[in-house]
Amino acid sequence: MRIAKSVEKLEAYVPGEQPASREAIKLNTNENPYPPSPECAKVLQGFDLELLRRYPDPNFVELRKAIAKANGCQIENVFVGNGSDEILSLAAKAFVENDEAIGSLDPSYSLYKTLAAIRDVRWLGMKKEALQKADALDKAISLFLWTNPNAPTGEWVHPSVIARFARGFPGVLIVDEAYGDFAPENCIAQALEPGGNTMVMRTFSKSYSLAGMRVGYLIGPVELIGAMFKIKDSYNVDAVAQAVALAAFNDCDYHRRTVAKVVETRERFAGELRRRGWDVIPSQANFVFAKPPSPQNASGLHAALKERNIFVRYFPGPLTGERLRITVGTEGQIAGLLAAIDDIRAKIGEQP
Amino acid sequence: MRIAKSVEKLEAYVPGEQPASREAIKLNTNENPYPPSPECAKVLQGFDLELLRRYPDPNFVELRKAIAKANGCQIENVFVGNGSDEILSLAAKAFVENDEAIGSLDPSYSLYKTLAAIRDVRWLGMKKEALQKADALDKAISLFLWTNPNAPTGEWVHPSVIARFARGFPGVLIVDEAYGDFAPENCIAQALEPGGNTMVMRTFSKSYSLAGMRVGYLIGPVELIGAMFKIKDSYNVDAVAQAVALAAFNDCDYHRRTVAKVVETRERFAGELRRRGWDVIPSQANFVFAKPPSPQNASGLHAALKERNIFVRYFPGPLTGERLRITVGTEGQIAGLLAAIDDIRAKIGEQP
Repeated sequence: MRIAKSVEKLEAYVPGEQPASREAIKLNTNENPYPPSPECAKVLQGFDLELLRRYPDPNFVELRKAIAKANGCQIENVFVGNGSDEILSLAAKAFVENDEAIGSLDPSYSLYKTLAAIRDVRWLGMKKEALQKADALDKAISLFLWTNPNAPTGEWVHPSVIARFARGFPGVLIVDEAYGDFAPENCIAQALEPGGNTMVMRTFSKSYSLAGMRVGYLIGPVELIGAMFKIKDSYNVDAVAQAVALAAFNDCDYHRRTVAKVVETRERFAGELRRRGWDVIPSQANFVFAKPPSPQNASGLHAALKERNIFVRYFPGPLTGERLRITVGTEGQIAGLLAAIDDIRAKIGEQP
Repeated sequence: MRIAKSVEKLEAYVPGEQPASREAIKLNTNENPYPPSPECAKVLQGFDLELLRRYPDPNFVELRKAIAKANGCQIENVFVGNGSDEILSLAAKAFVENDEAIGSLDPSYSLYKTLAAIRDVRWLGMKKEALQKADALDKAISLFLWTNPNAPTGEWVHPSVIARFARGFPGVLIVDEAYGDFAPENCIAQALEPGGNTMVMRTFSKSYSLAGMRVGYLIGPVELIGAMFKIKDSYNVDAVAQAVALAAFNDCDYHRRTVAKVVETRERFAGELRRRGWDVIPSQANFVFAKPPSPQNASGLHAALKERNIFVRYFPGPLTGERLRITVGTEGQIAGLLAAIDDIRAKIGEQP
């Protein structure tokens, strides 16, 4: 057998569609609708080619310094990855033995299941109610990935709930705060408890508008962060990505304004959907997970919107198939989406 | 146990030192002494921020098209990684079961051993003579990494030798041609044999002067390349890296001229060392592996050069400890190094 058995049987994770057309209204992969900080453009324009010729800093010291300073911790508490995806892959190696398992909420970020399959260990999905009693979890779970706010639901739980879970959980807990900047509070204080079992994962892909750049980071106790460094590729984050992420991170005002705009639009958008009879789960993320009113259904509406060059995300299956996950776009994009929804609805009404 | 046992006991790979000072003569990590193509600067200067906001192409189609066209193959024969490092990590997963082993030449790229340790499988190093009889190899080896030209020796073997090995080897063979552009011939034709077991790995870090950018690629049979795609992170190569690598790849003239300059300097440099009594292994790479004449020894000379802000690479150990691996720099850097070597030698002569 030339290809490992676990790989042979794998079905690859399918990321959200990336339509080529710029005219598309793209609300399917939770990108930020606003451009990254103008400081990022300056970094690219003035980038010293000498820094491309040389290997990048394998320890991303400047970026870690900035992150550590902002969070009141040491650089030894900070790891940086080629997107959060890489951080997850490394964590699945660092904190999971071959006979252990990875746990997460269900539904949650659908990549987690693929991640476990690639790592060739079991994935165990939990209803959120199950997490009230961490000691009732399957003992095989050595790494738990808790997305907060959760995807695709947008639901957010208070850090105290997660802290209680962590105390009863013997393994490593990663709180995936990919959408954390859109929520009221975060778990970073918990991740900085010396000797603790909790880490917080953040990304530049969402609130910093840098999905194209691939930078995520992890904050946690020194010994857990140290394990990540041991198994990473030597130079896992390129020189441009380090510099661009640093520029975005340091432009706090721009970041705050962008996040505030997204949150404002989210609230208005959720209200507009509810006015139209949709069931919208209260969201603390940059998307909503919402169920259209009969006779429209999620699957059909997803297809009808796509015909109009509007992309939203549909996850088939019993837990998710009644709803659409819709990224909060610009005011203009949301207006376009709502007009399309109204138009599709009107056409259904006209049918005999 | 919170950290996996195999990770707990790991010793991390130590990449070559990256001195902060620009005045240093840095000949320790095989970077290209010449800057990347000016087309790369243009890409950075004109980079559309919209492409940072969105996720990058998860399948790097444009870059694969260019690589496929240049090599007369299909894009299905081409995989791209976040540096060759990532390709190696993925291959160690895709083509190695938990009870199998990774083989390579010994000495060779020292990362391979770390790679096996991270993957928690055995690493088996072979003297080059052993490779004449692939069927005598340990049967546990399911992935063999053959660096050609080899590092740190610079030795190159003709593709026909590797083809003979591949025919007798039941596993997957990756010919790591990180330095292949500096050598007379490559193994790409062999990697394109349908149903074959051989892949060729290339990098933009050396001949394209893009070490800071992290892009490597793999050419091979469709089914083996397909296995790599199944287990990669969704968006493993960022948008800027894809665009910059493409620009460098398409600037063939610049690439050819840069490679020619390095090869010319390599030959002159090797001659200068031999004139000084050094034993220089004939190199087809962008570095030489050379033994200084007594009373100088490699370890001492490494330290003495470092004091003068000249960095070369020293690998302790029985197979490598008598020699220094010295990257071919610019003519000026090599002149500076030779002057320092002469000066250090003169000072030894003066000692009582």
